[in-house]
Amino acid sequence: MIKLGLIGLGKMGFNLAQNLLSRGHETVVYDVDAGASQRLADQGAEPASTLAELVSRLEAPRTIWMMVPAGVVDHVIGELKPLLSAGDVLIDGGNSHFKESVARGKMLEKAGIHYVDVGTSGGISGAASGGCFMIGGSREVFKGIEPLFQDIAVPKGYLYAGPSGSGHFLKMVHNGIEYGMMQAIAEGFEILEKSEFDYDYEEVARVWSNGSVIRGWLMELAESAFAKDAKLDGIKGVMHSSGEGKWTVETALDLQVSAPVIAMSLLMRYRSLDEDTFHGKVVAALRNEFGGHSVVTSD
Amino acid sequence: MIKLGLIGLGKMGFNLAQNLLSRGHETVVYDVDAGASQRLADQGAEPASTLAELVSRLEAPRTIWMMVPAGVVDHVIGELKPLLSAGDVLIDGGNSHFKESVARGKMLEKAGIHYVDVGTSGGISGAASGGCFMIGGSREVFKGIEPLFQDIAVPKGYLYAGPSGSGHFLKMVHNGIEYGMMQAIAEGFEILEKSEFDYDYEEVARVWSNGSVIRGWLMELAESAFAKDAKLDGIKGVMHSSGEGKWTVETALDLQVSAPVIAMSLLMRYRSLDEDTFHGKVVAALRNEFGGHSVVTSD
Amino acid sequence: MIKLGLIGLGKMGFNLAQNLLSRGHETVVYDVDAGASQRLADQGAEPASTLAELVSRLEAPRTIWMMVPAGVVDHVIGELKPLLSAGDVLIDGGNSHFKESVARGKMLEKAGIHYVDVGTSGGISGAASGGCFMIGGSREVFKGIEPLFQDIAVPKGYLYAGPSGSGHFLKMVHNGIEYGMMQAIAEGFEILEKSEFDYDYEEVARVWSNGSVIRGWLMELAESAFAKDAKLDGIKGVMHSSGEGKWTVETALDLQVSAPVIAMSLLMRYRSLDEDTFHGKVVAALRNEFGGHSVVTSD
Amino acid sequence: MIKLGLIGLGKMGFNLAQNLLSRGHETVVYDVDAGASQRLADQGAEPASTLAELVSRLEAPRTIWMMVPAGVVDHVIGELKPLLSAGDVLIDGGNSHFKESVARGKMLEKAGIHYVDVGTSGGISGAASGGCFMIGGSREVFKGIEPLFQDIAVPKGYLYAGPSGSGHFLKMVHNGIEYGMMQAIAEGFEILEKSEFDYDYEEVARVWSNGSVIRGWLMELAESAFAKDAKLDGIKGVMHSSGEGKWTVETALDLQVSAPVIAMSLLMRYRSLDEDTFHGKVVAALRNEFGGHSVVTSD
Repeated sequence: MIKLGLIGLGKMGFNLAQNLLSRGHETVVYDVDAGASQRLADQGAEPASTLAELVSRLEAPRTIWMMVPAGVVDHVIGELKPLLSAGDVLIDGGNSHFKESVARGKMLEKAGIHYVDVGTSGGISGAASGGCFMIGGSREVFKGIEPLFQDIAVPKGYLYAGPSGSGHFLKMVHNGIEYGMMQAIAEGFEILEKSEFDYDYEEVARVWSNGSVIRGWLMELAESAFAKDAKLDGIKGVMHSSGEGKWTVETALDLQVSAPVIAMSLLMRYRSLDEDTFHGKVVAALRNEFGGHSVVTSD
Repeated sequence: MIKLGLIGLGKMGFNLAQNLLSRGHETVVYDVDAGASQRLADQGAEPASTLAELVSRLEAPRTIWMMVPAGVVDHVIGELKPLLSAGDVLIDGGNSHFKESVARGKMLEKAGIHYVDVGTSGGISGAASGGCFMIGGSREVFKGIEPLFQDIAVPKGYLYAGPSGSGHFLKMVHNGIEYGMMQAIAEGFEILEKSEFDYDYEEVARVWSNGSVIRGWLMELAESAFAKDAKLDGIKGVMHSSGEGKWTVETALDLQVSAPVIAMSLLMRYRSLDEDTFHGKVVAALRNEFGGHSVVTSD
Repeated sequence: MIKLGLIGLGKMGFNLAQNLLSRGHETVVYDVDAGASQRLADQGAEPASTLAELVSRLEAPRTIWMMVPAGVVDHVIGELKPLLSAGDVLIDGGNSHFKESVARGKMLEKAGIHYVDVGTSGGISGAASGGCFMIGGSREVFKGIEPLFQDIAVPKGYLYAGPSGSGHFLKMVHNGIEYGMMQAIAEGFEILEKSEFDYDYEEVARVWSNGSVIRGWLMELAESAFAKDAKLDGIKGVMHSSGEGKWTVETALDLQVSAPVIAMSLLMRYRSLDEDTFHGKVVAALRNEFGGHSVVTSD
Repeated sequence: MIKLGLIGLGKMGFNLAQNLLSRGHETVVYDVDAGASQRLADQGAEPASTLAELVSRLEAPRTIWMMVPAGVVDHVIGELKPLLSAGDVLIDGGNSHFKESVARGKMLEKAGIHYVDVGTSGGISGAASGGCFMIGGSREVFKGIEPLFQDIAVPKGYLYAGPSGSGHFLKMVHNGIEYGMMQAIAEGFEILEKSEFDYDYEEVARVWSNGSVIRGWLMELAESAFAKDAKLDGIKGVMHSSGEGKWTVETALDLQVSAPVIAMSLLMRYRSLDEDTFHGKVVAALRNEFGGHSVVTSD
């Protein structure tokens, strides 16, 4: 049973900590918000009030899991590195860009520190009770920490993907696919919504979740969402994004992959952020210029 | 010099009438709105108060040009047909669907009436002072009325395209291209608008209209539009459409042509008609379900 | 237990027949290919050699399920109608266009025959051992045949969707979503394939099938496909389509739904049918014209 | 009349040199390929065999125009910088990324060297006989060299766009629009090609170039291309790209602009580079898995 240090107790990290604790892993936890550490202490974790304390509570060779926002990883590594020893394993379980993971892997290897990039899927519930993990780094290092993934993943739910960066790359592409699948499902429901028929969307998502070709977790989540709000009247169609979809499209461009569905699902998210668009104004103005078509005036 | 009957005095028809009159063509005009006929009478046209009168004022073999909305063509043909004689030429200069033009050509040919489908481009100003005409029907019939097009088109601005339907097909595809070009231009200006730079769009459209690869009439119209309203503040980005773009996409699907740019330019027009979208709500709800990402609540 | 007539013993019909027989339903079967009927007779079905015989082997009110290609439905209905009685139930379990189902429902109702349009998902294996059924028609008629669906569907795998046409509409949209989801998954694997990493795609599909957000039947099928051919070297990337995706896009256009992901997944299928494209030639020629960029000459 | 140094005598640079010489500008020319310099010397240019010689042949404050590939600009600046004096003007007339132009402008300004980024459009013929120029940098510096642009641009064909980077940004977006317009035109011709009609494409491009809404230089170039090869039989539909379209899409993503038409025109170029696609194989394999749809086997 691996004793683990866990840095970052946001939604994903907190649930992962509970997962680890429930499986009997000793876990030293740290977050800039001491309250989160304290709540986990009540469930059996060892709270550390500084990164130094977290490191000191683990015996070398250590295994430390970072679950922090992508923008903070370099800062945490910068603080941790002088505290670590050759042979320690540092896991980045967040959504870092794969190129950064490749670079960090090289940089840390020079100090003998083994870097492992882990893409995590399954959402909050997956972190809490069994998720999906895509793991990049040295195969030998992976073998050493494999028991950890056997415990926190669903059965068959982890993969040693290849060298540094390959875990985060795989997670990035996973998210790109997710964007496309979500947009496909969403377009389907919009066609239903504008149709001449009057469907019960919860029931539709339920029947599509059972026996159909398009069954899967996203459809089950759609059923759950419609169960709470039958027509989603309570929410706006503003589709935020957290970066991995954009990275996927940028990577597709770099690799000259024609990935129109993933690209369009991203562009429709951006479209949803604007109430009105400048491109729409230009087209409306041009139609008016050549055809005298009337425009809709703004108030 | 051909004496012509002209039915339909909307924006396009009225300007075409003026064009014909200015070139010295005798023109009998008819519209359900008698006021339009009267205004043209002041400019030398012969107003007819009924279709029957219009027909009676022309000597067989007659040349009659319909410039009416696509939805009204069958009605007008239905009224005209009993009044016409074998050898008469009936021109549909509006935006009819090419399949209807093929069918009408066949149907009228049985009565010896020559049907000519003419796609008209150039906007209102083109109709008024020289447009672009794509002509389908019998080549022999076309030869007989070619002098008409020599007068109303800009130099080199008319084409005998082929058998019945080929004129309207060509015009339909022209409009599909137009959708794509307008959206491309509009997206470019939106990128400028959201950039770190502060461009003068009238000046940008002006420089792009002179010497650049993307120069053309649409860019000149953009210059004109920005001259009137520098940031298009006065109009909303609602992009209406009048049908030919949809026909083009439907035809592309029938012919299994991958036409993503024309298709996306149409879909963005539809997107602009909705303030909020159901697909956006579904994606936002799904993100909330698996990731706890907060949604924007509607008021 | 409903005694059923089943017309059409292709891949889907044959497996559905086996499903029905295995659940103890008496089933009279007919296909233009008598061999299929005979094979089912060996499994307990009553083979009919004509439609008339099939009808005569059922007592009124009859329940008859058609599982024939969309293009043949009118022909079968034409033959069946004079043989049926008021009160009989005629099910179309194939992929008919919903507008035709609406029309057929109205037409048959005049003769007192109850038409039920059933969209069927789940593929061949679903037909064989439990599929997903979307059912349109009269609710009362549905209630009468509901026990049938309880037997042949997976648990929770059937839905009374609404009036005539609503079942096939739902299935059509289901297929549109399926196109989008498949293309999203496929684009993801192409990004992996062109990346700097060397993934084992069977393993990737396996890990994504367990615990990830994008898990579902399609991902499980990807695992199965890669298990048979690790890099899919044996097959070409030609993506045929059977019509429902096109109908979905056409319907989206009619309803003015911006459905770019479903539309692009269809257009990429069309693109895959062409080894070379005329649009590519035009762009290459234009680049050569203005920039002197060299073109690739055809042999 | 400004005496100018011109570095880089490729297709664009060579033609620009001829343009300058024909207007009576003294021009010192340099290229790594001495042959190009020599050919221009025959037309009145002063050839320099090194960058140092080129600089020494100009009196401070100098005006030097670089027309070199984007990948070489830093190298040339590195060599030039020690040779230049405060007050010199260095123009980058190539297709550099605007972010690099912003950075170079800042870096050179520290040495008192005025950097001007100039986006150039109009193709080879534009460079030769009057192009379109989008100019970024200090307005005051621009004023000093404006006479140069008055000579080499078509009337109204240059614009002071704003601070450093704004010229190349504008050119980048211009190219993005160009991608979209070209793809729109090309899709239109593909629809014609697959239609039931038999059009003469040279004639179509000719009529669309005269009086239509979509008239412009690209359509004129299409006419020219079809005049040389009526069906473009001699060339393949492989659409290469030189980078600015990709930059435009990447910039749109950074600015969260929904630019589907420009994005799709880029993705179709990438698609054209592959004879077969991995995404196609995956979709074909999935269809086979769930529906037993046959695949096309590779040889």
